[in-house]
Formats: sequence, structure tokens, C-alpha cells
Amino acid sequence: MRDEVTPIQWTEAGTVRLLDQTRLPWDEVYVECRTIEEIAHAIRTMQVRGAPAIGIAAAMGLALGAAQAPAGTVGELYAALDDMGVFLRGTRPTAVNLAWAIRRMREAVAPPRALSAAEIRRTLVAAAQALLRDDLEVNRAIGGHGQGLVPDPGNVLTHCNAGGLATAGYGTALGIVRAAAESGKRIHVWVDETRPLLQGARLTAWELMRLGISATLITDSMAGAVMQRGRVDLVIVGADRIAQNGDVANKIGTYGVAVLARHHGIPFIVAAPISTLDLDLADGGAIPIEERAAEEVTRLAGRGTAPEGMPAFNPAFDVTPAALVSAIVTERGIARPPYGESLARLAERGRESHAARRGQGHGQQG
Amino acid sequence: MRDEVTPIQWTEAGTVRLLDQTRLPWDEVYVECRTIEEIAHAIRTMQVRGAPAIGIAAAMGLALGAAQAPAGTVGELYAALDDMGVFLRGTRPTAVNLAWAIRRMREAVAPPRALSAAEIRRTLVAAAQALLRDDLEVNRAIGGHGQGLVPDPGNVLTHCNAGGLATAGYGTALGIVRAAAESGKRIHVWVDETRPLLQGARLTAWELMRLGISATLITDSMAGAVMQRGRVDLVIVGADRIAQNGDVANKIGTYGVAVLARHHGIPFIVAAPISTLDLDLADGGAIPIEERAAEEVTRLAGRGTAPEGMPAFNPAFDVTPAALVSAIVTERGIARPPYGESLARLAERGRESHAARRGQGHGQQG
Repeated sequence: MRDEVTPIQWTEAGTVRLLDQTRLPWDEVYVECRTIEEIAHAIRTMQVRGAPAIGIAAAMGLALGAAQAPAGTVGELYAALDDMGVFLRGTRPTAVNLAWAIRRMREAVAPPRALSAAEIRRTLVAAAQALLRDDLEVNRAIGGHGQGLVPDPGNVLTHCNAGGLATAGYGTALGIVRAAAESGKRIHVWVDETRPLLQGARLTAWELMRLGISATLITDSMAGAVMQRGRVDLVIVGADRIAQNGDVANKIGTYGVAVLARHHGIPFIVAAPISTLDLDLADGGAIPIEERAAEEVTRLAGRGTAPEGMPAFNPAFDVTPAALVSAIVTERGIARPPYGESLARLAERGRESHAARRGQGHGQQG
Repeated sequence: MRDEVTPIQWTEAGTVRLLDQTRLPWDEVYVECRTIEEIAHAIRTMQVRGAPAIGIAAAMGLALGAAQAPAGTVGELYAALDDMGVFLRGTRPTAVNLAWAIRRMREAVAPPRALSAAEIRRTLVAAAQALLRDDLEVNRAIGGHGQGLVPDPGNVLTHCNAGGLATAGYGTALGIVRAAAESGKRIHVWVDETRPLLQGARLTAWELMRLGISATLITDSMAGAVMQRGRVDLVIVGADRIAQNGDVANKIGTYGVAVLARHHGIPFIVAAPISTLDLDLADGGAIPIEERAAEEVTRLAGRGTAPEGMPAFNPAFDVTPAALVSAIVTERGIARPPYGESLARLAERGRESHAARRGQGHGQQG
């Protein structure tokens, strides 16, 4: 296996270095963000994408913003952080990891500790770096829990990119694929190209080739035919937001794959960190679905694919009802239906261990 | 409504003029075929495509081939026609209309009439032109039978292009849409872009814009989300081959749309001329599925979409089981399940009227 993909780095110069995912697989180039505005631009234009990755990028954006906020009182800095949080949350509405990461950043500098402005700024940088490190561990844990679900030999179908590029590294859905391959299982992956932005063809294909995992690219419209021929053992996808009842928002087309998987009796697995849970939402009906520019559907690489003036619809995500989801693999274990209970249990387990860690941390510092 | 699309014409110069469908919607250019080889090339490269259209093109190719076959005995000409039939049938294996059209051409010059070589050549030209004229009528009849299935207002989803471009004109699936619109119904069409070759984005969008019928382009992966939102009343698609039991081979992705339609309780309608029936096949399992070059998947609009060397799978068609098909609309009426009986009845009705027409024709000639 080749070196780890590093889609996001905090540099020694105090900038954020992002692997430009709009240029892959043609060019492996990095953009260097020096300001919160540059981070927001990178998120909006999908130079960085994938729910966990945009959470981390936003956290780093907040650290950059805090560092550059005009010197003033601590109260003014906290107020500025609130504004920056609102600004960053507005970049992309569907993935809840973005809001989660910003909340985690605020918690890192929240009372009861009384911090100076300089301490707040330093703490935010450390917290953003910790989020990056933690996410890598989270993904390895997801891979560890999930790989037992993959048969040997195993034919996995995936949609979009929930790989190292969508996270701090290793990946969620592809993390499971990778862990299964690393455990010695013979894995083959069917890669949905994932129109309109081709994250499957461009990014998942690129990652699997680097990893040396056998894979075949198909258009999204071929998933049904491949399943019908008995050549898919399970589907694994990532998630951008998961409601209390287990409804899953993920890249447009995921829902169609889930319906096909159900029709063929194929397990449909969602891999996501606990940060993807939105337990404030009873079900997926309330998840905001980002609509992007029609040109993403009617153009590719600067060339029109449809007649000039043809209207197009471009929802970036869809919602797969919990009833079609066989299991949700998190870093804390596997949730099974009914998800209302199983997800609440995993989230609760987290609050306990998070509280324990915080207690321990305070102890060490104190 | 604007002037009729004329994808295929027999010119006064004795050549075949094809609207180059690989260049649409960017350029409206025609290729002029002077030989059977040029026709075969146009079919293989999909300058002409759509099951009925390639049948007509092949018939015209046979007429060109016969005209240019070395002068010899009538027996040698018949033998040459057999070879040309095999050659043309090999261009694309899935659409049965191609084999049907060649058979019809052979019947036009078959015994008991004793024809001279010159008469055979002339008759073949006339027969090919008749196929073209008949197909236009066939499509109008399909539209007439099918339009009653479309509600008002009606939201139709279609996949690939089964429009005027896929036929002599007017279209099969789009013929129904058009007839419904012409009858005053308020129609909106969701157009699947239809990767890999984008017949939906390029051709169906182009036709609907010319016709002034309201339409919205989506990627194939969005069909599920649009259905989930309750915005599709029925699906209408064409067909490349229909087996005895009603199993339908059509453009890759059709099967996925059919599964989604069933999941949402949406009628799934197939529109096709009787020439698309292959009553020699008990079911769809025996339909040959053409696999095309991987580059069609790994490239889009002339640019690579995946890393160099990424393997891809590219079946050009899939098979939708009869159980997912709500109705098959032909020029002779609408077949409903069980298709074994209903299709046989429509085919039989045809043989009677065909025989009657032949009898009448002979009478007029005699």
C-alpha cells in the first residue's frame, strides 16, 4: 500500500494546505488557505469535500479567523467566533459535521476556564489539529468494526467518495473496504462514477488504484445491472447527516442504490462517524438538501453536455429512509435497526467517554 | 411545434443521408452514406442509433449493397444479400429491429415472384423507403394508443432517447409524450441524461426543446430522488428487444428506473413497434447484451473522467423483467400482463393484416 492521502494539513507556517479535489485525478495540486474566507471558498467550490473533511477544514478556518480577528476584548473575540461559526455553517448546508466541528471548537474554549485572547487563539489551533488527528483514529475504528461485515471474497459497490479524501485520511466506507483488504480478504469494488461531479470516477477510483485494491468503474446507471447479475455482495456508502431514526442524507444517487440493494436482497451499509448524527432531527424529512448550480449537470470540463438553455435540476444529496439501511457502522460500533434506540445508545456511550476524557484532561492539566 | 426531425433520408442521388447523432446538440450536421460499409460504420459508431432507426438504416444499407454488388446471376445476388445481412446484423447485437428489417427486405424480393437482378435492386430501394414511411405511421399509432395513459397534468420520466431521432420520426416513448401534449395535456418531462453517451442530455433534451415541451434534465442518479418527492406520474421508455414473456432489453439504466418506479408505485410503460418483439426468445435471459469500449465510461465529452488505466465495465443495455413492466404500447394497441398472451395476440393480429396487405398489393399489381 502506498503512502496515506493527506487531504488537509495545518502547516508550520500556520496555514491550511488542502489537496485540491476539483483537480483530481488529472493534477495533484494543493491550495494554501491563509484566511477563513479562503477556507469558505474551498468548501463551497468543493476543493475540500466529504462530510468529515469539511468539518475539519471549517475548524481550521475558525482557528485562522480567530488568529486574524482584530485585537480586542475576550468578549469581542467570542462574539467574532459566533459570527464566524454562522458564516462557515452557511457554506454547505447538508453535512452536519460542519456544525459539529464548529461546536467542538467553541467547547474547547468555553467557560469555566477563563482564557486570554491569546490563549483562545492558541487553543483553537490545537483543537483543530486534534480534530484532524481524532478523525484518522475514528476512521480506523470504523474500518475495524465494519470489516467483519465484508465477505471473502467480497464484491462491494460504493457511491461517491467516502475515502481518505473525504476525511482526515483512511476513509469511512473505503476505510471498511481497506480494513477488509488489509485483513487478507479478496475484495473487489464497483465504483459508481457519481454524476454530476464524478467523485467516484475521479476520487474513489484514484484512491483504490493507489491502494492496489481491485476496482471497476461503472456509470451510476449500471449499478442495477451489476446487482442483477449477482456480482454485488454488499453496498457501503458514507453519510452527510443521519437523523435520530436512522434516515441517511448522502450524495445524490445513494437512495437509488439503496432501493436497488433492497430489491436484490443485498445489505446496504452506511459508514459514518458519530459526528454525522443529528439527534435533533426526528427523521430525514427535515434535513436541508443543498441544490447546486444547474451547470454542474449541463456542463463538464467547460463543455456543454446538453443544448444551450436546457433547464436542469441539481440536488446534491438525497435521503435514504432508515428502512432501507441494514446497518450503520460508527467508530463506537455497529448500529442496527431500530436505529432510534441503537444510535441513541452509541451517542450516549460517547458522551460518557467524552466526559471521562475531559475530566482526565482537566486532571492532567490541573 | 417546429419541423419534423428527419434522422434518415434516402436521397434522390441514391445515397443515405443521416443526421449525425454523435455531433448533437452541438452541431446539426449530416453524413452521406454511399456504401453498405459506410452504413455499417454509422451504425457501429452510433451516428445513427435507436432500435427502429438502425433497422431502417440497415435496410437502406442492404439496398445500397445490392445496387453495388458485382453484376452476376440472380442466384449470386441472393447469395450476396445473405452475406450482407449477416454483415449488417453483426454491427450491433441487441436491437432485434435490425434483424427484422433485413428479413423484411429479403421478403420483399422473395419467391414466388421471379425477379431480374435489376428488379431486385429496384425493389429493395422501394422496400427500404417503405420501411421508413411505415415507421413514421407506426410511431404516430403508438402515440395515439399510449397518450391515454398520460394524466393531465402529467409528469413523465424518460431514459435515453426514444424520440424522433431513434426512429423515422415522431418517436416511440417521446411519441406518446408528444401525442399527449398535442391533445392539450400539460406535460412535463424529466430527462435522464443517460450516461455514458448522454442520449438524454444531448438528444431527448434537444428534441423536447424543439417541440416546446417543458422538460428538466437530471443525472441518472437523480431519478430516485425525483420519484421520492412525488414528482413523477409515469415512466415511459423505448425498447431494443422484447422477449415472448415481456422481458425488455433497453438502454443501460432502464432496469434501475423500473425498480425505482415499482418501489414508488409509478407505472412503467414501454413503447415499441411490433418489430421489437423477438418471439423466438422465451425470456430476456437469452438477449445478447452488447458491451462497448471502456473509454465510453472513462471519458465524457472528450475528456478523461477517471485516472489513466482505471478499468471500466460498459454494458450498453440491461434487461427489465416483465414483472416490472406495467404495459407495452405498440402500434397495434397496448399489451398488458401476462405478456405471453397479450404480445402473441398483437403479433398474430399483425400477421393477418400483413398477409391481407400483401394479398391486396399483389391484387393491385396483378
